Amino acid sequence: MIIVGEKLNSSIKRVAEAIEKRDAATIQDLAKRQADAGADFLDVNAAIRVSQELDDLTWMVEAVLAVTDKPLCIDSPNPKAIAKGLALYKAAGRSERPLVNSITGEPDRIQGILPLVAEYKCPVVALTSDETGIPSTVEDRVRIAGKIVVEAEKYGVPREDIYFDPLVLPVSTDVRNGAIFMDSLRTIKAEYPGVKTISGLSNISYGLPKRKIVNRAFLITALAAGMDAAIMDPLDMDIMALLKATELVLGQDDFCMNYLTAYRAGLLGEVQSKA
Amino acid sequence: MIIVGEKLNSSIKRVAEAIEKRDAATIQDLAKRQADAGADFLDVNAAIRVSQELDDLTWMVEAVLAVTDKPLCIDSPNPKAIAKGLALYKAAGRSERPLVNSITGEPDRIQGILPLVAEYKCPVVALTSDETGIPSTVEDRVRIAGKIVVEAEKYGVPREDIYFDPLVLPVSTDVRNGAIFMDSLRTIKAEYPGVKTISGLSNISYGLPKRKIVNRAFLITALAAGMDAAIMDPLDMDIMALLKATELVLGQDDFCMNYLTAYRAGLLGEVQSKA
Repeated sequence: MIIVGEKLNSSIKRVAEAIEKRDAATIQDLAKRQADAGADFLDVNAAIRVSQELDDLTWMVEAVLAVTDKPLCIDSPNPKAIAKGLALYKAAGRSERPLVNSITGEPDRIQGILPLVAEYKCPVVALTSDETGIPSTVEDRVRIAGKIVVEAEKYGVPREDIYFDPLVLPVSTDVRNGAIFMDSLRTIKAEYPGVKTISGLSNISYGLPKRKIVNRAFLITALAAGMDAAIMDPLDMDIMALLKATELVLGQDDFCMNYLTAYRAGLLGEVQSKA
Repeated sequence: MIIVGEKLNSSIKRVAEAIEKRDAATIQDLAKRQADAGADFLDVNAAIRVSQELDDLTWMVEAVLAVTDKPLCIDSPNPKAIAKGLALYKAAGRSERPLVNSITGEPDRIQGILPLVAEYKCPVVALTSDETGIPSTVEDRVRIAGKIVVEAEKYGVPREDIYFDPLVLPVSTDVRNGAIFMDSLRTIKAEYPGVKTISGLSNISYGLPKRKIVNRAFLITALAAGMDAAIMDPLDMDIMALLKATELVLGQDDFCMNYLTAYRAGLLGEVQSKA
């Protein structure tokens, strides 16, 4: 599974403060630690101060690029910020493609961001919501995904570069919400072969106690349902260990190589073996 | 998911010693703790001293029945021991049906044990192995399951009372073994609608470090694939918490009732909530 490290997000108070104070050490420490823990992309979001987003994002992207070789995930609803982030990343001369986060079914997001995705030939996260919000049914989410597939073709963005997020809502508001997510994920992959799928983990557990346990169960269940990527905290050793074990159980880890490598590197968390 | 508590098994050294010394306190403590932790059945196995199995099982079943209302899972390859265990359970006047563990595709197990299952009208665990051992392919396991379904019909045992164990082999010997199990489980449920499925958790991780993590990933993945029951350690709070969270994520816990009840009872383990 592809792991997008979620920690460099200005909606996190500590990150917002570091951006405001131009405290590069805090940002760079989070970047390095996520990279060391196994993140494949580092999400970079500076959207909290809307009027200063371009300046904040520029500072943040440059701070992160200075300390890690990992590709970035440029995260903003604002096409201008996406354009700025992609330009900075390209100027740094990196060979690995960045990820764009995100478009939705809304025309202004599609028209503002898909041309950039096409220009930089990079993958993009596509949320299955539109101007009416997040649909409650599987059918409506799949319909929005279909619309995005058609738009992406128009702009020359291949299916393989679309990471659909079927958008999970909390089980605390409706116990069917987890199953609706899994059904949407499976149906989108079946209806539009070649596309990929992605999700964050924390929405599922909103309003519940012991949220991390629910987030873990959600990740493993989604991985078993075929999810390709997750926006998550790679510094949580327990969930990373469970993820590696699940890849092993699903037959995605030849000769148990990744699992044993993680074990030797001390990355399998606190759980003790019985024997 | 139906939980069969696995701790009262004479292959565990401490249990074997307690049986030998007729140390009822140790056996009864394990029975009570598993019942309190949420086991639906208590597996009782006294097969370690083959020549004394009937005496040992009689003592053990009586010791367990004295301290808990949970139904037992009478566990032996020996039809005489199964007969003895079922008779003792019936004599105790319990209303809930016991579980028989287990038959295979082998004629002597079928002919010896299925008549007892029919007589006591109870459910039975059926392993998809036969006189040639555990088949390496999905097809051969499904074929054995089909043979057992036919035999069960002959004896008047309904499909709903068969818990097929598709038999997981270690991923350390072949990384496809987890996927072969999941495929066998899904295919058996699809080919023989009505039958149930069950598995132990520890075979998957044989030969690997940090086995508990792999066992957890296996349980969650199997539950997501539709497994109905597990023979497991209900005293492992972390796996029990993850199990409840997975039922929640899969939409099997109306109004989050079981999850919240477990939380209030302090049964959700050590994992700390973020917020």
